[in-house]
Amino acid sequence: MKPETPIALPQRGPALHERREQIIRAALDHFRHYGYSKTSVADLAKAIGVSSAYVYKFFESKQAIGEAVCTHSLGQIDDALREIAQSENSASDRLKELFASLLSKSLALFFEERKLHDIAAVAAANHWNSAKNHRAALYSILKHVINEGRESGEFESETPLDEVCMAIASVMTPFSHPLMLEEKTPEQLEERVLVITNLVLRSLVK
Amino acid sequence: MKPETPIALPQRGPALHERREQIIRAALDHFRHYGYSKTSVADLAKAIGVSSAYVYKFFESKQAIGEAVCTHSLGQIDDALREIAQSENSASDRLKELFASLLSKSLALFFEERKLHDIAAVAAANHWNSAKNHRAALYSILKHVINEGRESGEFESETPLDEVCMAIASVMTPFSHPLMLEEKTPEQLEERVLVITNLVLRSLVK
Repeated sequence: MKPETPIALPQRGPALHERREQIIRAALDHFRHYGYSKTSVADLAKAIGVSSAYVYKFFESKQAIGEAVCTHSLGQIDDALREIAQSENSASDRLKELFASLLSKSLALFFEERKLHDIAAVAAANHWNSAKNHRAALYSILKHVINEGRESGEFESETPLDEVCMAIASVMTPFSHPLMLEEKTPEQLEERVLVITNLVLRSLVK
Repeated sequence: MKPETPIALPQRGPALHERREQIIRAALDHFRHYGYSKTSVADLAKAIGVSSAYVYKFFESKQAIGEAVCTHSLGQIDDALREIAQSENSASDRLKELFASLLSKSLALFFEERKLHDIAAVAAANHWNSAKNHRAALYSILKHVINEGRESGEFESETPLDEVCMAIASVMTPFSHPLMLEEKTPEQLEERVLVITNLVLRSLVK
């Protein structure tokens, strides 16, 4: 069975890519309406008018589809944050905006779209790569801003850069982690993100 | 039924207190060996040679016993931290020791005694008072040290004290929260507690 897919892959590239996207869109739609656990690969196949076997050509399991959906949603957050990080504002202002935006977008993803919450919980519990990649993206966005703040003389630069970035990425965890977001009200989280942003800035600004 | 217990209470005070302690000790012992969910009130009653009805005179439900056990265990952490907070060391050194100790004691409670973890998860998910009281204790211990650091001129005192304490208490959450402790290895947590402690100190020290 094994040699089938890889050999044919290069020629079918673009069409395959579209099909993959179509499955992801159908999955996102189903997860939003019925939740991850109540959606089967057969449901998705039916929704786009193909067989389950055909879906399995693209994704080896329901989990693989789930990871692709998470990668897609978290990638949208990363893109928005990357845009903030590249603005012309001072490094302090960019950090403030980054943290506020990380919270509001994570809340929107996990809670306004309530049904997506169960996939996030499964992802967190099982250490999916989508969550790991999201953390890596946040880290590099943060590093970019801190580094620019150091170069412009706005931030202290005595502490090793990686130590500073690791510490700040860690203190931001409660504002992007589905299990932690669940424990507080949005108002409590907004208050906390403000006071922690201020603490971080006091630790950075010379 | 109601008037029975309260009327007799004052005279039976000390004996009742001992009985309560005995139930808590038996519960802690059972939760350690079999876990919270697999222990029944009948098991505890049997272990100390009384009827379930007798146990219910002291605790209205298994949850009430669970909360008492948590209060007992978390209270031991609070006592150890309070002792650190009252030492003669500089405020910075006391904060370092507080955070390292919070992490190591929380890890010991939830993970070295693996079976106690399920009660901690139930407590966190259901917002038991024991967890709320523990957070309040941490907050006041922190406030004591920060305040002394301000009075001695070691720490900045421009930022409102409550804002500083709320921010620091929040950034310490991942080192005392059973669900968060579960996601990293002890080595990762120890590295993180160090870099976050340094970040906090950079934000405080003038």
